[in-house]
Amino acid sequence: MSKFWSPLVSSLVPYVPGEQPKMANLVKLNTNENPYGPSPKVIEAIQAELNDSLRLYPDPEGESLRHTIACYHNVTPEQVFLGNGSDEVLAHIFYALFQHGQPILYPDVTYSFYPVYCGLYNIEGKTVPLTDSFEINPEDYKQPNGGIIFPNPNAPTGRYLELEHVEEILRANPDRVVVVDEAYVDFGGESAIRLVGQNPNLLVCQTLSKARSLAGLRVGFAIGHPDLVEALNRVKNSFNSYPLDRLALAGAKAAYEDKAWFQKSCDGVISERERVAGELSCLGFEVLPSKANFVFARHKEKSGENLAKELREQGIIVRHFNKPRISEFLRITIGTSEQNDALITALKSL
Amino acid sequence: MSKFWSPLVSSLVPYVPGEQPKMANLVKLNTNENPYGPSPKVIEAIQAELNDSLRLYPDPEGESLRHTIACYHNVTPEQVFLGNGSDEVLAHIFYALFQHGQPILYPDVTYSFYPVYCGLYNIEGKTVPLTDSFEINPEDYKQPNGGIIFPNPNAPTGRYLELEHVEEILRANPDRVVVVDEAYVDFGGESAIRLVGQNPNLLVCQTLSKARSLAGLRVGFAIGHPDLVEALNRVKNSFNSYPLDRLALAGAKAAYEDKAWFQKSCDGVISERERVAGELSCLGFEVLPSKANFVFARHKEKSGENLAKELREQGIIVRHFNKPRISEFLRITIGTSEQNDALITALKSL
Repeated sequence: MSKFWSPLVSSLVPYVPGEQPKMANLVKLNTNENPYGPSPKVIEAIQAELNDSLRLYPDPEGESLRHTIACYHNVTPEQVFLGNGSDEVLAHIFYALFQHGQPILYPDVTYSFYPVYCGLYNIEGKTVPLTDSFEINPEDYKQPNGGIIFPNPNAPTGRYLELEHVEEILRANPDRVVVVDEAYVDFGGESAIRLVGQNPNLLVCQTLSKARSLAGLRVGFAIGHPDLVEALNRVKNSFNSYPLDRLALAGAKAAYEDKAWFQKSCDGVISERERVAGELSCLGFEVLPSKANFVFARHKEKSGENLAKELREQGIIVRHFNKPRISEFLRITIGTSEQNDALITALKSL
Repeated sequence: MSKFWSPLVSSLVPYVPGEQPKMANLVKLNTNENPYGPSPKVIEAIQAELNDSLRLYPDPEGESLRHTIACYHNVTPEQVFLGNGSDEVLAHIFYALFQHGQPILYPDVTYSFYPVYCGLYNIEGKTVPLTDSFEINPEDYKQPNGGIIFPNPNAPTGRYLELEHVEEILRANPDRVVVVDEAYVDFGGESAIRLVGQNPNLLVCQTLSKARSLAGLRVGFAIGHPDLVEALNRVKNSFNSYPLDRLALAGAKAAYEDKAWFQKSCDGVISERERVAGELSCLGFEVLPSKANFVFARHKEKSGENLAKELREQGIIVRHFNKPRISEFLRITIGTSEQNDALITALKSL
């Protein structure tokens, strides 16, 4: 606390990202990174930009990347908003679209950055409990609100909400923006982007950090009606004209262009996920059905907190949230088959 | 305008960055980029990070880069705040440190992003006129305020305020944060960073976009008392945990480590600036004394707007601001000697 701080600063409760350990040789299954590297074409594309042109500002509009993403998702470039990772995109969404004097709704068990954005922008957030089986019930989103946001698949549960239910939420809230945060959608879900044309209140947010293996490059985007994108652009252009650097723009574009690599990567994660889920079940875990690149599981007898500690002692990091309803769960990122084997072997020994 | 927008969005007046033309072969003297490329060691350092590790998140704290910058400037890492370009750093400064129910002060002729941030965060801004010779008069900053910000050297004037006058402003405002925005300081000014230890209300902001030729990489930082840095970190960690990607962190660090390249680059710009200023004077321009990598000049007879247009027709882009007091001026970035020759030749022909 300091007399120089804006009054709001002292009450902020910042987001705590998963640990990025500096030790090598850890089996790092704690931040939902992709176990496979990015496409070699991404490396080549960045390589081609790695020269004196770094002295020049990047394209503030990211036109070429927006065009590529628009073509890929069958929308227009005017429907695409780019940001420095989807976290920045989400921050601008909260500021630009969620300030309507009513609480915004999100699940009680969800991405823990949502309440942080509420705190940052003094927006009231109202948690909507997931069902006992940790599912989103669309009925619960038929109440007055200033906007709605949920990940699909949800995090950290991994549970996917079928698009017909997303549509139900959209139809029940024609005057409010409904944000579907699809960080993990490529691991088995279907994107709501195809609903954007019919639903001017829908905004879909995605990232290149997961299925496209580019957590280290910081690129995210939102797709929705041009009116929603314009609001985001107005905020973005009042905050930072150039959120994406030249290398990130080039690498992200190449990632979208290499569909074969992307597909192979997702298929690999999905098949390993199913294997890991099966093994965990055999070891006495309850594993929630996951469409993400992680599983969320609790042991029928052992404490989640202890399991996380004991795994750590064996050089394996998973994520444990000391929060209501989920304190017995572990969120385990799907790694390479070797990493997953190490996890299973370690769990068997505990 | 849309019913979905937060009320504030419709009143935003976004910043308009200098044009980034897609045509090649233009002599681009409009956005104060460095005419020389970044250090070859920057390219090498990024190269070394260009691999599968892009699948992993970057260090959210940028510890290694903060350490390097801290050593360079003789401060501690706790005094260094990193951001995705200094524009992002400035945005967080406005939010975290300038909300005190009183107007913040900045010059009437200055970086045009300041009033934009005020609009974004609903902060009252009060412009303080520069003197008739476009200088900052410290006396004018001895009035009630919620914070003070000015570039030094100022932009777009290029005029530098001696540190003894900066200290005068600091002493007159012990209860308010004074931000010195030093984007251009390496081209002949002296940094106020050496005053940070004695002045807990001083925050100095710098960028790697200018003297370190990395506009395309998006890295900026602020240096000040740890209490000020903590406020910025609280906001940053409530907005985006990972503002700098892995490649930017590596490249920025290498840029700071190659002092020889940096010095050569600055010396080259300074010597060309003095030559261009001299030539412009001979051509009938009044040229403000500049310590930046640009000059701000008006012709004694010809209109600034027309000159900008006529230069553009010859493939040379400079920046013209259609604003009170400065509408007859051109802001001309110092280019390579060939680019500067092209400018002078073109002006002679007009």
